[in-house]
Amino acid sequence: MKQVSGFSKLSKVEKINYVVEEVLDGNLSTNELIKSYWHDDEEEQKIFDDFSENTLTNFYFPYGVVPNVLMNDELLCVPMVIEESSVVAAAAKAAKFWSKRGGFRTEVVSTNKIGQVHFIWHGETAILESFFEDVKEELIKEVKPLTKNMESRGGGLIDISLKNRTGDEPGYYQIWAEFNTCDAMGANFINSVLEAIGKKFSDLVENNFEGVNSEIQVVMAILSNYTPDCRVKAWVECDIDELEDPGHGMSGREFAEKFARAVRIAKIDVNRATTHNKGIFNGIDAVVLATGNDFRAVEACGHTWACRDGVYRGLTDVFLEGNKFRFQLELPLSLGTVGGLTSLHPLARISLDTLGRPSASKLMEIAATLGLAQNFGALRSLTTTGIQKGHMKMHLMNILNHLEASDEERGLVKEKFENEIISFQGVREFLAGIRNYQ
Amino acid sequence: MKQVSGFSKLSKVEKINYVVEEVLDGNLSTNELIKSYWHDDEEEQKIFDDFSENTLTNFYFPYGVVPNVLMNDELLCVPMVIEESSVVAAAAKAAKFWSKRGGFRTEVVSTNKIGQVHFIWHGETAILESFFEDVKEELIKEVKPLTKNMESRGGGLIDISLKNRTGDEPGYYQIWAEFNTCDAMGANFINSVLEAIGKKFSDLVENNFEGVNSEIQVVMAILSNYTPDCRVKAWVECDIDELEDPGHGMSGREFAEKFARAVRIAKIDVNRATTHNKGIFNGIDAVVLATGNDFRAVEACGHTWACRDGVYRGLTDVFLEGNKFRFQLELPLSLGTVGGLTSLHPLARISLDTLGRPSASKLMEIAATLGLAQNFGALRSLTTTGIQKGHMKMHLMNILNHLEASDEERGLVKEKFENEIISFQGVREFLAGIRNYQ
Repeated sequence: MKQVSGFSKLSKVEKINYVVEEVLDGNLSTNELIKSYWHDDEEEQKIFDDFSENTLTNFYFPYGVVPNVLMNDELLCVPMVIEESSVVAAAAKAAKFWSKRGGFRTEVVSTNKIGQVHFIWHGETAILESFFEDVKEELIKEVKPLTKNMESRGGGLIDISLKNRTGDEPGYYQIWAEFNTCDAMGANFINSVLEAIGKKFSDLVENNFEGVNSEIQVVMAILSNYTPDCRVKAWVECDIDELEDPGHGMSGREFAEKFARAVRIAKIDVNRATTHNKGIFNGIDAVVLATGNDFRAVEACGHTWACRDGVYRGLTDVFLEGNKFRFQLELPLSLGTVGGLTSLHPLARISLDTLGRPSASKLMEIAATLGLAQNFGALRSLTTTGIQKGHMKMHLMNILNHLEASDEERGLVKEKFENEIISFQGVREFLAGIRNYQ
Repeated sequence: MKQVSGFSKLSKVEKINYVVEEVLDGNLSTNELIKSYWHDDEEEQKIFDDFSENTLTNFYFPYGVVPNVLMNDELLCVPMVIEESSVVAAAAKAAKFWSKRGGFRTEVVSTNKIGQVHFIWHGETAILESFFEDVKEELIKEVKPLTKNMESRGGGLIDISLKNRTGDEPGYYQIWAEFNTCDAMGANFINSVLEAIGKKFSDLVENNFEGVNSEIQVVMAILSNYTPDCRVKAWVECDIDELEDPGHGMSGREFAEKFARAVRIAKIDVNRATTHNKGIFNGIDAVVLATGNDFRAVEACGHTWACRDGVYRGLTDVFLEGNKFRFQLELPLSLGTVGGLTSLHPLARISLDTLGRPSASKLMEIAATLGLAQNFGALRSLTTTGIQKGHMKMHLMNILNHLEASDEERGLVKEKFENEIISFQGVREFLAGIRNYQ
């Protein structure tokens, strides 16, 4: 492959031609395969082309729904976008289970978001602190043109303060800003405000001090994706007796204790905690994706929270008291239902319509609910039948599609692997056997 | 909305009808909008329908490429799937920058993966330890039918050992298993082997002990997504003079020091660390998605690693020595280039073809390279022009599409906002002004 110049200036078709001819096999069928993933409506397709850069086509993720999610006495049909088999099935199963036991409960703990102007200044801290207090109102006033629209919706810049971090890095301070971004995730809003604050503060320092004290270096001005004060809680509760699982010969008490042990292990073993939380994010991210939110931001935030006490731990808790079982997830989660792609992506719009056009707070609750449902489903499988049975049953369908199995062959494979461990190799060999024999 | 029963048994069209009629607006156009996202080829569509459950249609993510990625002296064209604007542009810019300065270098540190059988046993630890050594070979032999295929490819079960965790939870032990899964991510393989080991070990304990010692509870048998020994490193290096940025009037030294400070801040400030790493995962996840890998697993692993010393920190490091600048990313990353969706998803297959059908190790290197490129691009913007200029220029296109701006209007808006902060509100008001005036 040779270095290509001006690639971004090529048209979409020219880009595809380049990739197929210079990088791939040069076949017309490959070119057509890539284009077959375009939307039929050119206008609709243009929306996706402009979301990102150097776009060739669309990558498909399965879009499904989980009906019967009972949250705070309201029945929801929750859209999920996820490529992993058995996640949606597990969520649906958990939702059904809990809909018969009072459903999910949720609470938004708080919704404040954070931004930081990181800067370096080498004068005396006390002077800077006093100066900051003097110009604080001027800084807030400076960004009014940027915040007035958010204020009219009930949000805006809540407060700014100066943080002395010179103990960690010579001359390092932060302007720490708290925001209420209403129903927006708010990244662009926060970043615009912070850059303006940083610029104004820099000007003020330069104009009001002399010598070394007038030298200020704004290193960066940017939101923080770690938002411990934008936090949600979701839980389920029932009598321990109601957890009886006759299918596995377990009493409610036995199940509750085994389940609680699995949750405790995720608190004390980092290798388990990672996997435990990964399962929670299977549920959360599927809602995040379906509603056009940013899963990298959600993941980074949740995992940082998971290690807030210095040890990385599972995000859920179980409480057993008397005959009561309570299972709970609490985590910071910053989502939007306006702005970003939420209204630009046609299917994100459909997702939000399916959820009844929720506020950002309600979407936090829904995502947390699905995270909790997912964790319940995973732990229930793990502590009873094991995870592979359900998962591989689902994945078997993928394998059969790949091996282009006929209906008859599908029947024989399913029968054969009813109680056997499913592997791609095993299925392929079994199918080869059948096909040879016939 | 009423509780629906048997939803999963409905056909795809019936599911869509149900959602549109019972949850959405009941309009035919909504029904058709959802179906317009199906692939035209029914067979091709079926693949996606079966990846997950309760599927209605496909959710689109923009599929783009970054050409000219020079990694270990090889030029790569890297596919990226990401919905966030400016990520691909930033990666392309960073790739171009470094292609003129020797390109990216990478190294796979190790590739071992981990699985655990968590169990409870209340006898004397020494007895169990000795028993485990006695039956260890039998356990390994038991899973030979499951591991033989992986062994023929050079991988398999590397070793199993007993871990005493009774200090953390009464009676808690683990069978700790290490695997080499070759070019597979290996989750299904590892889980199948662990479940078989757990079952066999449980049988052996029951058959060889009496009384309380024969009572063993296998809590769970499952892989760990935290794989610190499946790890990759990517770096760039150049003379500090080569970093000169005349556009921002910065010498190479000034840029290097400001950049290094930004990296250091992500090491000492948790709020910045989260956002810093989020940006790294913008690059990594885009490759993970494009190749049909599981981004939740990758995220959970990387963030757990980020807090391995008890404080959550940025994942990149800068080294300035004399006139040398070195910027490096190191993280655990478990990916596959066979199995899972890698060959089942037609566009994941195209992605792997575009990358020259890499081994899993090489894909680790590519993903890490894009993570590093992304972090370089983000920090470079942040510490020079600020993040908003480039980002909002990209996002402006989305806003203009949404507001259905004509070509003439687009020109006027771009001119107007050349040096102003772009907000949805601002653009809407400006456009309304033009439209009123005309």
